Amino acid sequence: MIIALDAMGGDKAPSATVAGAVESVYMYEDINLVLVGDENIIKKHLRGKSYPKDRLSIKHASQVVDMQETPTIALRNKLDSSIRVAIDMVKNEEAGAVVSAGHSGVALTTSLSLLKRAPGVDRPAIAAFMPTLKGRFLLLDAGANINCRPINLLQFAIMGSAYYSAVLGVQSPKVALISIGEEDTKGNDLTKEAFKMLKASKLNFIGNVEGKDIFRGAADVVVCDGFTGNTTLKISEGLAEVIFKMLKDEISKSLVGRMGYLLIKPAIRSFKKNTDYEEYGGAPLLGINGTCIICHGRSTSKAIRNAVRVANQVVKININKIISDAIEGSLNDIKEQELIN
Amino acid sequence: MIIALDAMGGDKAPSATVAGAVESVYMYEDINLVLVGDENIIKKHLRGKSYPKDRLSIKHASQVVDMQETPTIALRNKLDSSIRVAIDMVKNEEAGAVVSAGHSGVALTTSLSLLKRAPGVDRPAIAAFMPTLKGRFLLLDAGANINCRPINLLQFAIMGSAYYSAVLGVQSPKVALISIGEEDTKGNDLTKEAFKMLKASKLNFIGNVEGKDIFRGAADVVVCDGFTGNTTLKISEGLAEVIFKMLKDEISKSLVGRMGYLLIKPAIRSFKKNTDYEEYGGAPLLGINGTCIICHGRSTSKAIRNAVRVANQVVKININKIISDAIEGSLNDIKEQELIN
Repeated sequence: MIIALDAMGGDKAPSATVAGAVESVYMYEDINLVLVGDENIIKKHLRGKSYPKDRLSIKHASQVVDMQETPTIALRNKLDSSIRVAIDMVKNEEAGAVVSAGHSGVALTTSLSLLKRAPGVDRPAIAAFMPTLKGRFLLLDAGANINCRPINLLQFAIMGSAYYSAVLGVQSPKVALISIGEEDTKGNDLTKEAFKMLKASKLNFIGNVEGKDIFRGAADVVVCDGFTGNTTLKISEGLAEVIFKMLKDEISKSLVGRMGYLLIKPAIRSFKKNTDYEEYGGAPLLGINGTCIICHGRSTSKAIRNAVRVANQVVKININKIISDAIEGSLNDIKEQELIN
Repeated sequence: MIIALDAMGGDKAPSATVAGAVESVYMYEDINLVLVGDENIIKKHLRGKSYPKDRLSIKHASQVVDMQETPTIALRNKLDSSIRVAIDMVKNEEAGAVVSAGHSGVALTTSLSLLKRAPGVDRPAIAAFMPTLKGRFLLLDAGANINCRPINLLQFAIMGSAYYSAVLGVQSPKVALISIGEEDTKGNDLTKEAFKMLKASKLNFIGNVEGKDIFRGAADVVVCDGFTGNTTLKISEGLAEVIFKMLKDEISKSLVGRMGYLLIKPAIRSFKKNTDYEEYGGAPLLGINGTCIICHGRSTSKAIRNAVRVANQVVKININKIISDAIEGSLNDIKEQELIN
């Protein structure tokens, strides 16, 4: 399988992306990687590295999208940007998937424009795994759609369920809606309407969940609008970071604490590994005709390498077919219900 | 100062509320407490406890609001509920403040109905302190207003700034808006409009903040709609709890880890004390004519006692006057600007 990697995207690009690419071709033998971006810069970063030349190539793109750009403007004006050229490769079937740690809004807009929505999907969503006490849950939308309608949330739930089943082998994953109270009467206008639609669907909908339940592992698939999802993602990340910092500061205040810290350090390392976004790799954009994996802007080479692994897996399970079938199935259910009524 | 305590409100009421009341009268010598609720039940919980009888009394209320009730219905039908009778005491100037760990929606609706909005305030907001790396920030609205307009967010910022200044003695607290990107073009319809209004105000507005910045202490006052605020609060709470549980599980896997844990336990305890919601007590409802402190539903006696402390402090600094002045000041600023333009 060929994977196009946006070599210029991300805070640590191109050093992290190039290093991640080299690591990937060593670790995953069934993939070929194409680094998309400025050929001279990429070559400079590849210098001195040894890698199988036949499995790692470069495709030149002269432009780079930076984080401040407006997606629609970048889409219109930067026809030779690394992200666009990479997505174009998927469109032209030169690559099976694209991975980018660049501007996620631009990756989204360009994917939508070049690859188009999957049939029956109004709004594609970013599906991000996050850790819980029991394992992990899938959060969507993690930031693709800022303003949503109730039908979007239903579709996120259908796509998320199908993806979760396919990746983790769980038959009817538990679906929940982020709200601010467990009762169906609680929430904002969006969640109240979405609640009704989810309840009427054939999904394993368990109702509203609050922040405190999510991390305990109350649900497998957690849906919300992209504003709430992105806030949830970033609050969690920020808080986890700060908790460790504060705890370490507190521990370092005494000699006994510092000794204790040395003893628990391996456990902390192992805990961090289990919960680190770098391990989760990237988050696929579900609901487009093609595979696009969106990575954290701060992605290290390890995060990139894991995103390549996710891309490979997503294509292998044929996620697009799985999602089309799930969406079509739910449309048929609705038609059936209408015939009965 | 007389404080009316809703003795029947909260998951652990009345045992936690009664115990919290007894602790309060011992700790804060300048307050008198009135436990509002079923007299027989309260008496039963007071039995065997020693306390200054002249400073802790009971006011009977025959009904209790439970967590599943719809606020407007509870307001209409439960005229003798503990929360309503307690708020009525503030209205009739029999008490200077009310503290409740019961149904926050009912506390809000009843406060609004009986005490009314402060002049110039469209929507009162719950203002909750949360810990950061550097100290703490004030989050509002933490859950009173699910659907908000931009003007509400501006008013939250004005009220929050005034409160933060009064409590922590900071001159022009840094105000920020929760959004999903730091640039002013990022966010949803609500935050984009609110951004413009905040920028045009005389507040020390530093722009959008994301979840990751909040806990690092980027801002003093953080505003958002009540849905986002409540989600932020509950995600943070849930995540912090789960991080400690997971970390402890990981540490307990090895003998060395368990030994290390014993050494860092005092530090963990101290860290938890600094960040525990119980220490923060309750969150005032800003923007009403009167003082109402909303507590966590799970409040222990310690949380209740700290909420009583907050109530006492809020009344002493005359927060209502401070907020009226701030709102009036900002209205004058707007008029001035209009005259100039």
